[in-house]
Amino acid sequence: MSTTASVYLDYNATTPLDPDVLTAITDTLRDAWGNPSSSYTQGKKAKVIINESRQNMASMIGAKPSDIIFTSGGTEGNNWILDTAVKCFHDDQNAENHRKQLPHFITSNLEHDSVKLVLEHMVSAGIAECTVVAASKLSGRVEVEDVLRAVRPNTIMVTVMLANNETGVIQPVSKICSRVRSLKRHPGETPKILLHTDAAQAIGKVKVDVSDIPVDYLTIVGHKFYAPRVGAIYVRDLDKGTPLYPLLFGGGQERNFRPGTENAGMIAGLGKAAELVVRNLDAFEKHLKEVRDYLEEELVREFGDMIHINGKFKTSERLPNTCNFSFKGQGLEGHKVLNKAEHVQASVGAACHSQNRASPILLAIGIPEDIARNALRFSVGRETSKNDIDIAVRDLKKCHDELSKESN
Amino acid sequence: MSTTASVYLDYNATTPLDPDVLTAITDTLRDAWGNPSSSYTQGKKAKVIINESRQNMASMIGAKPSDIIFTSGGTEGNNWILDTAVKCFHDDQNAENHRKQLPHFITSNLEHDSVKLVLEHMVSAGIAECTVVAASKLSGRVEVEDVLRAVRPNTIMVTVMLANNETGVIQPVSKICSRVRSLKRHPGETPKILLHTDAAQAIGKVKVDVSDIPVDYLTIVGHKFYAPRVGAIYVRDLDKGTPLYPLLFGGGQERNFRPGTENAGMIAGLGKAAELVVRNLDAFEKHLKEVRDYLEEELVREFGDMIHINGKFKTSERLPNTCNFSFKGQGLEGHKVLNKAEHVQASVGAACHSQNRASPILLAIGIPEDIARNALRFSVGRETSKNDIDIAVRDLKKCHDELSKESN
Repeated sequence: MSTTASVYLDYNATTPLDPDVLTAITDTLRDAWGNPSSSYTQGKKAKVIINESRQNMASMIGAKPSDIIFTSGGTEGNNWILDTAVKCFHDDQNAENHRKQLPHFITSNLEHDSVKLVLEHMVSAGIAECTVVAASKLSGRVEVEDVLRAVRPNTIMVTVMLANNETGVIQPVSKICSRVRSLKRHPGETPKILLHTDAAQAIGKVKVDVSDIPVDYLTIVGHKFYAPRVGAIYVRDLDKGTPLYPLLFGGGQERNFRPGTENAGMIAGLGKAAELVVRNLDAFEKHLKEVRDYLEEELVREFGDMIHINGKFKTSERLPNTCNFSFKGQGLEGHKVLNKAEHVQASVGAACHSQNRASPILLAIGIPEDIARNALRFSVGRETSKNDIDIAVRDLKKCHDELSKESN
Repeated sequence: MSTTASVYLDYNATTPLDPDVLTAITDTLRDAWGNPSSSYTQGKKAKVIINESRQNMASMIGAKPSDIIFTSGGTEGNNWILDTAVKCFHDDQNAENHRKQLPHFITSNLEHDSVKLVLEHMVSAGIAECTVVAASKLSGRVEVEDVLRAVRPNTIMVTVMLANNETGVIQPVSKICSRVRSLKRHPGETPKILLHTDAAQAIGKVKVDVSDIPVDYLTIVGHKFYAPRVGAIYVRDLDKGTPLYPLLFGGGQERNFRPGTENAGMIAGLGKAAELVVRNLDAFEKHLKEVRDYLEEELVREFGDMIHINGKFKTSERLPNTCNFSFKGQGLEGHKVLNKAEHVQASVGAACHSQNRASPILLAIGIPEDIARNALRFSVGRETSKNDIDIAVRDLKKCHDELSKESN
């Protein structure tokens, strides 16, 4: 992944495909191109591959295969699950009281746009109410008590991401879910508060097991764990009635939940990537942590108190691969540093965001604006070496020195 | 595509990838895996590929690149466009009168489930009204005058497929659109009737050019023309205000119309397949027609009046690759024939439908039930040879003889 010419440190934006994943995709596209709904060999072969992938995806998160539905990616998954919550609210037959109200969501101010903007749209369109719980500036996390305080009679869903994409801070989703689940609901209230987490950034970096995280729904995004640009949703006990309302209607694929001829090649790749996570997660995690920690040591060694590491809180766990930091001072905005960099390919935050403003996520966790504006997000991958880090830090040193001179 | 062991004749269900398409996909997955929203080389490379594909897709249908939006496939495209029509109806500011009504759709009884079931859902959920215009039993087509008669003050959209997937009959979409466009709308009526066609089966087989077909929206499905399982929608003059309401919200990709990190590999394949259609459509069409016509001659030669060719009307054009036919008689149901076939891989109708009932499409165009129940859909491809047809017809002969004996 890295040569002297370029050091890719943006694995939270997207990952390359694992070579085995690429092979699985290519083989399937070439040899199992039949329509999985067809009854002859070509079709059946594809169907078998899809079901193997479903099995691997389930294993990866400790789920049953029947609880996995393939999607076109994380954006579809998140949109779909939030949409399901609204439909579930209106479908509840015992809900005369809360029917007069709108469904109420609870979320955090750290979410990805594919959750944040859906909820903002629902609020502005008069479809839903939403409480955005502010993360604690002491922990970089959404605190359980703050979520509980936001619960209302018409609350239909709590959606909090598993790990933040910019800081890597792991959110207390397990505890939030357990506590919300144990709330007693009264007549006239929503009988159940549905629980969702977007696990896009956590999967493949830390253990994600639905036996430990009592969510109802979880979003899986392939291209964050060396799989292709498709995804899946997990729905706990889908076959036992957990609500899931199709967003699309059509040819009946995915048990009518998600029609459309299955993208068997991409699904094969997703399954292979899941298999690799099942087999190697401990080694991946150890390697990522070692390299990321080395990066932070080298940054501190090289820049001392000229830098600030963002999102590192004593009380909070972080993803093992993410380092968000800022140079202190004028003229050292993240995008200027990256523009000057000769080798480093990284970002100042979420790939889909404007590069020139302070990240709302960093501001949300209490990073002062002048520091946040200078933020760089380095996220390491399975192949990143300490040598890559050395090149990156030398590159940064050069950028920092030049930019410091320019602004004097 | 064919060996003695198997003759694939189900190209309307899905096509294999053209080898050049597979190469385009693989190269992109391997070499341009960056996030297209990222500002460094890896990301930019992917962005360039996506825009080249958009250009090729536009060329294929005579459109502007800015009128093409990539989707996860035809099901998403069709669902999205119908959903847009409903939102457009409610958003119309000058619509006090028709606001009290529901939006009204006009469609045919020949549509794919990804149109049919969306409209059925909308009707049953009280979201829309729908007139299903019956195809003529004299032409196998939806007739223009029948569509015009169905227009109401609250009609928001007419959606008729370009070519039927089971019979191959090409629908008079151009004429329907011209006539509906020329209708004068009165105060209190919807000011404009939006026009949509699902071009899934037509593209890559016959010329599809939006300068000849005055639709507002057109659905493109990759895996029907040797491209991968993604798709696109065409929206005429999207940049000049033709309504398109996002179905999903997220990271701003596809000019905010269709967020989600772009599936660059699949999009590269789609673009390559479009390029091949631009370059070779005449040759493809000629070959398909030659082989399909040979198939029909051989069927008639071998089986005489023991078969009936379904969906062949003097007044209607058909796709050049599709042959729908039935053996006449007891015990010769399509699925029984296919189960017995040693070499032929084909279908009795749409891949996503039950195999054991008479096709509603064939019944709709006036095929008697006992004939419809025995239907076989053979659809030939770019690589199908006359030798393949000979093998298939011999195979059929054997099946027919055995089944005839069994039912005597």
